[in-house]
Amino acid sequence: MRISVFRKAHFNAAHRLHSSSFSDSQNQEIFGKCNRPNFHGHNYELILKLTGEIDPNTGYLMDLSILKRIITDKVTNYLDHRNLNLDIPEFKDTNPTAENIAIMIWKRLRPEIEDRIDVQVRLYETERNFVEFPPNN
Amino acid sequence: MRISVFRKAHFNAAHRLHSSSFSDSQNQEIFGKCNRPNFHGHNYELILKLTGEIDPNTGYLMDLSILKRIITDKVTNYLDHRNLNLDIPEFKDTNPTAENIAIMIWKRLRPEIEDRIDVQVRLYETERNFVEFPPNN
Amino acid sequence: MRISVFRKAHFNAAHRLHSSSFSDSQNQEIFGKCNRPNFHGHNYELILKLTGEIDPNTGYLMDLSILKRIITDKVTNYLDHRNLNLDIPEFKDTNPTAENIAIMIWKRLRPEIEDRIDVQVRLYETERNFVEFPPNN
Amino acid sequence: MRISVFRKAHFNAAHRLHSSSFSDSQNQEIFGKCNRPNFHGHNYELILKLTGEIDPNTGYLMDLSILKRIITDKVTNYLDHRNLNLDIPEFKDTNPTAENIAIMIWKRLRPEIEDRIDVQVRLYETERNFVEFPPNN
Amino acid sequence: MRISVFRKAHFNAAHRLHSSSFSDSQNQEIFGKCNRPNFHGHNYELILKLTGEIDPNTGYLMDLSILKRIITDKVTNYLDHRNLNLDIPEFKDTNPTAENIAIMIWKRLRPEIEDRIDVQVRLYETERNFVEFPPNN
Amino acid sequence: MRISVFRKAHFNAAHRLHSSSFSDSQNQEIFGKCNRPNFHGHNYELILKLTGEIDPNTGYLMDLSILKRIITDKVTNYLDHRNLNLDIPEFKDTNPTAENIAIMIWKRLRPEIEDRIDVQVRLYETERNFVEFPPNN
Repeated sequence: MRISVFRKAHFNAAHRLHSSSFSDSQNQEIFGKCNRPNFHGHNYELILKLTGEIDPNTGYLMDLSILKRIITDKVTNYLDHRNLNLDIPEFKDTNPTAENIAIMIWKRLRPEIEDRIDVQVRLYETERNFVEFPPNN
Repeated sequence: MRISVFRKAHFNAAHRLHSSSFSDSQNQEIFGKCNRPNFHGHNYELILKLTGEIDPNTGYLMDLSILKRIITDKVTNYLDHRNLNLDIPEFKDTNPTAENIAIMIWKRLRPEIEDRIDVQVRLYETERNFVEFPPNN
Repeated sequence: MRISVFRKAHFNAAHRLHSSSFSDSQNQEIFGKCNRPNFHGHNYELILKLTGEIDPNTGYLMDLSILKRIITDKVTNYLDHRNLNLDIPEFKDTNPTAENIAIMIWKRLRPEIEDRIDVQVRLYETERNFVEFPPNN
Repeated sequence: MRISVFRKAHFNAAHRLHSSSFSDSQNQEIFGKCNRPNFHGHNYELILKLTGEIDPNTGYLMDLSILKRIITDKVTNYLDHRNLNLDIPEFKDTNPTAENIAIMIWKRLRPEIEDRIDVQVRLYETERNFVEFPPNN
Repeated sequence: MRISVFRKAHFNAAHRLHSSSFSDSQNQEIFGKCNRPNFHGHNYELILKLTGEIDPNTGYLMDLSILKRIITDKVTNYLDHRNLNLDIPEFKDTNPTAENIAIMIWKRLRPEIEDRIDVQVRLYETERNFVEFPPNN
Repeated sequence: MRISVFRKAHFNAAHRLHSSSFSDSQNQEIFGKCNRPNFHGHNYELILKLTGEIDPNTGYLMDLSILKRIITDKVTNYLDHRNLNLDIPEFKDTNPTAENIAIMIWKRLRPEIEDRIDVQVRLYETERNFVEFPPNN
């Protein structure tokens, strides 16, 4: 019996959008107020989706207390109350758009979860803007 | 790197459900209070889902300021504070169910967005009733 | 022991804002797209707040099954899937703003509930616009 | 024209997690406070997703008043204000995890809905934990 | 400068409504399905409101890390994943209605918070039913 | 007829908590991860509450299009996508706690709204932490 299980977490972080591929004026034009030099920030909401076979003994896809510890260790403690541009090595040369943050979270979580389970990340930057990686199809 | 990006918008509109395929009494029986002659209305919430390759220079699937302008021009300005049955040509002979509104919004947005990007519409008529077009599978 | 108890309900309705105190052009200028002739609509959310002494035998302020019946009879059945301007006598000569709808709901509910209980209405026209009558102070 | 239509419902129930595959101490270790003997409970939110062809005459995937009756008969009346472990035969020997409740709801609803329509259940145990059956892929 | 500060918490619990003032048939008539013998349950959401003077040095009404510890110690650890009727001494002879749970939470928290700060409890039993103690006026 | 009218807005900003009344180690101890030097951020939600007499001609407490312009000019444009500590003069020597941000917003809005109308600010820093100024009583 394959099923999907979802777990929600959150973290707060500062960032600015700025790409080393562009000049300063191009960055301003493309990213607008998201490019302002002194950063702004978000309450990021993360929904992790795991898909795989239910364990018939527990009735669980996986033990959520283990999953919570993985999310705390690999995502929340790493990103919460941080400046994504200044504090997080993955964004030294990568623009911390919602797209890139979601992929980076997926890359940190994927190796921690058993191979039998598919992993998808949904990340809300605001209630109105969110992303999903990898996409459903 | 394929990813899905979601953007939320909303509009308020009046409508009634009435199908030209049916007699008045059939319409009343099938659509109940949604068929009442003087209309009722909803706060429609639209979630647009775009799926495609991230641009490695921007870190964006697409520029959301362009997307916001497209949604405003093609959906919000067209439908907000309107009577779907009386004011919107697409519903002259088509019943403005949530299903048909979602398809109509998809048809208006699909040509405005690059072919490389897949487009899906989720439309909430109320918090308890919503539709998605095209379906995931 | 005084306490406040809240109960949520909802209804969908069409309306337009138009005041008989003004000319047509004044109405257009003041109410903008809310004045459009063919109506628009909303999912109205109602939160009824009752304040009074707990009954020590039941542990209830009042029996919620009785309250639900009152709300259904006096508010939901009266307003749901209606056109406020055309179908509701209270708005024959009164502009159905959120303010006036909230007062009208309060006037319909107040006599149905025991005098020992204070009644307050909160009405959401959208998630972003709502009103409360009577005010707290 | 294939489309997905979603309908939300809810029920409140008590349960405890306990698997007959394990000893008491194993149950305590695996399920923690969810294993406490006197039960705890949840406000379960159910979102039913139906996917199929729109009926061109009604503009509906299916008549929602029929769907609401099916959900009420088969799910809400059966599970609301119940103890899942003690009152519900399906959980006599099955652990009422969110995963197993979602599958059980799907099994009760699937035969009641026309074969042309795909049925998916999303079940929220809390705002932070939810499951989906069958998974999208 | 007086201000109000709100902090949200949650717990899950089982309960049934049953008053020792009434016979079994009266209990069934008054409390309906909430009286069923094997319990049901809720995701309770608690919003604690504190009102008082801001500390000009910290810019805080009070240190939220201290408040979180108090809520965890006195409310969450005490009520979460419990059966209110069977496990909680306060409800040995008191009906665990939302009203009585809110008052009981207020009585547990009030002595833990400095006298200079007013304390109000809002408790959601479901999204549609909630209570507030003490009332605003 | 006195009534309260609420209007919701939002802005995203970076900040850190740091008080000039304390040493660096005291700041770290009191504000914990909120004190980290490179800032973090939030999606702030603002609910403005206005209380006063309804205008019998319009049925409005005040014209919301005017109110929206005031909120945009005085709050959103001033705070959105900014660093509260570095970009906002009010926080040059004041710690940008939710309490102090709410008071600062109230001070900016109060003079812009007619004296006959009472003004209250509710500010959500996260879904779980929010403040209200001035308090109800």
